[in-house]
Amino acid sequence: LVIPPRVVTLLSDFGHRDAFVGSMKGVILARCPTAQVVDLTHEIEPGDIVGAALQLRYAAQYFPAGTIHLAVVDPGVGSERRPVAVRSGGHFFIGPDNGMLWPAVAGAGSAEPFELRDARYRLPDVSATFHGRDIFAPAAGHLAAGVPIESIGPRCSELHTLALPEPTVKEDRIEGEVLWVDRFGNAITNLSPSLVHGLAGGGFRLVAGTTRIEGPSSHYAAVPIGRPLVVLGSMGLYEIAVHRGNAAEMMGLCRGSPVAVRALP
Amino acid sequence: LVIPPRVVTLLSDFGHRDAFVGSMKGVILARCPTAQVVDLTHEIEPGDIVGAALQLRYAAQYFPAGTIHLAVVDPGVGSERRPVAVRSGGHFFIGPDNGMLWPAVAGAGSAEPFELRDARYRLPDVSATFHGRDIFAPAAGHLAAGVPIESIGPRCSELHTLALPEPTVKEDRIEGEVLWVDRFGNAITNLSPSLVHGLAGGGFRLVAGTTRIEGPSSHYAAVPIGRPLVVLGSMGLYEIAVHRGNAAEMMGLCRGSPVAVRALP
Amino acid sequence: LVIPPRVVTLLSDFGHRDAFVGSMKGVILARCPTAQVVDLTHEIEPGDIVGAALQLRYAAQYFPAGTIHLAVVDPGVGSERRPVAVRSGGHFFIGPDNGMLWPAVAGAGSAEPFELRDARYRLPDVSATFHGRDIFAPAAGHLAAGVPIESIGPRCSELHTLALPEPTVKEDRIEGEVLWVDRFGNAITNLSPSLVHGLAGGGFRLVAGTTRIEGPSSHYAAVPIGRPLVVLGSMGLYEIAVHRGNAAEMMGLCRGSPVAVRALP
Repeated sequence: LVIPPRVVTLLSDFGHRDAFVGSMKGVILARCPTAQVVDLTHEIEPGDIVGAALQLRYAAQYFPAGTIHLAVVDPGVGSERRPVAVRSGGHFFIGPDNGMLWPAVAGAGSAEPFELRDARYRLPDVSATFHGRDIFAPAAGHLAAGVPIESIGPRCSELHTLALPEPTVKEDRIEGEVLWVDRFGNAITNLSPSLVHGLAGGGFRLVAGTTRIEGPSSHYAAVPIGRPLVVLGSMGLYEIAVHRGNAAEMMGLCRGSPVAVRALP
Repeated sequence: LVIPPRVVTLLSDFGHRDAFVGSMKGVILARCPTAQVVDLTHEIEPGDIVGAALQLRYAAQYFPAGTIHLAVVDPGVGSERRPVAVRSGGHFFIGPDNGMLWPAVAGAGSAEPFELRDARYRLPDVSATFHGRDIFAPAAGHLAAGVPIESIGPRCSELHTLALPEPTVKEDRIEGEVLWVDRFGNAITNLSPSLVHGLAGGGFRLVAGTTRIEGPSSHYAAVPIGRPLVVLGSMGLYEIAVHRGNAAEMMGLCRGSPVAVRALP
Repeated sequence: LVIPPRVVTLLSDFGHRDAFVGSMKGVILARCPTAQVVDLTHEIEPGDIVGAALQLRYAAQYFPAGTIHLAVVDPGVGSERRPVAVRSGGHFFIGPDNGMLWPAVAGAGSAEPFELRDARYRLPDVSATFHGRDIFAPAAGHLAAGVPIESIGPRCSELHTLALPEPTVKEDRIEGEVLWVDRFGNAITNLSPSLVHGLAGGGFRLVAGTTRIEGPSSHYAAVPIGRPLVVLGSMGLYEIAVHRGNAAEMMGLCRGSPVAVRALP
């Protein structure tokens, strides 16, 4: 019988200049030398809980059952927010209970939260500034090594939730916004095909700033180089792109920019 | 009998801000939990097929036989370019058939390409914008788990090739160009010692922009701090450097900048 | 009997654009396919030996016994500085003997240095510009695969040391400096609680530039948003921070900026 190694994913706003993430990996591997440790991203903007929540929810679903997702965007470190580990749909989520974990946990199944209170599963000295290393990484390492989540801390009350921006359906249009701008400058909206289909089954016009785009296009190269398009992106949401260009820069879009779709006449 | 874990390398233009690469790793580990997944680079400029080809060819040769190299710089994603897996010289290369794989494949041996057409070895829903996750990562994961490449798709016709910039040998000089500028500002040329030796066995003068440098130097510290030099670099090509300085910035060099060498008088 | 995989950490100034680090990982895995390879950071400023030394010393202590720490900030590559492997306190440290390894080695225990001179444990062709790949990575791979350090090279004389900036205790104050600015703009000083306690057991006033801060605060959120504070940070040193802000930018602090603490009146 071969037990496959446990996967531990890491997501944070720690960046790559400091050895913060490296020290967390050391703590995990000291407790579970066979863990598969995978970075989701560490380039979340400092303190951006909503951005972290979006990326965690997006990425977590591609990992195998049993994966432990450790996420730390934690501007309230050292204050009263609870450190938690959550079991949901066969996955585990570890981090501060500040809403960041909520969308991914809810996407995975029904949440069973536990508070990371037991000193045996923390580093001996817990700093006031880096619970990623001192509380969350030891918990992830012990979970990966086979310690049951029930042993790591007591079952606790429900998680803080986080409301992601939702579109509004009006009589003749749907109003949404840009959720995220990716590395290529694609602006990912909060408009899903199922929502838009009710209004505009046969194609739509999207307005973002001063630009109007007829959509959807089937793929980036379906329009000439340099032209804007709307395409169903890899997060299952419509995104605004420019063929071989940077839509966010060219159209002045950023997170929160309003977008609206109407049916084609 | 212990079977060593299979190595899967990843190279892309996805950057580190988004969880694109993380989701690909989830897809791979869900199919092969013991894979050794290694990043080559994800900071290729968006759409830069030539840069990706150079870095992949450079790095692939240092990996053990059986390594699976997954490379995705794919501006034509969703259009007609073929998704392929290639066996060559005991290595495997997976990605879009847009020329990017060609130099590394040719460097490894003779190419046997297969088209990634079989729905069993893709994600159930293939997006129009992210074949790295939906087609290439599942193929890499299945290959790493032991599925034969012949099962993953049918043998297909030859790969698209890619011509890297080649130097021109003139009567009294060799004209080349800068292939790549590295993090330190070293400008790696396409001039190899074997080529230059025919013209200038006993030393040469290199001209780049308005700078003339006698070379080669044996190492960076062979000239005073702040002075330019030409040294045989780690890719086996002459590179223009400045001792403890940034040659590209100081000399205004970038990819494609012309360089020429002449024999010393 | 299951032997846990050996951990190999990597720290360098190679950045993420080039495939330098990727090629080093290939060399390591070709020699030890089961190694756990972990990045500490590759964003050390080019040639910054002191910054590398600080980050290595900080992170190494969190890794399990037997870990192999490979660190390469090597502006003198190709010149006479020695390539070394060092055993200290059950850890191994590999890199150029230019002082960078010293603080971590000294922190781990008493140093036993060995010179990496044996051609069997190098790549067949050693370049003049990239000993990370050609000398240090093969040594790390062989060590991880179980080759004794005594076989890799002869025992050699003591390591070069490196003096990190030390604070000065005056009659009524302690003068220190900023050692490091982290991703969040927190300015980590070289002032430790044990040192400061002797002067100011009941609280202190820290002066940095034109800013005076009473400290210590218990955590970031102990002051209003936008206000500066001094907190005991995760490296065990006092750091200057701004609640949800960037202290280094707001206060004009960088490495080497002087700071001073006095007892509260």
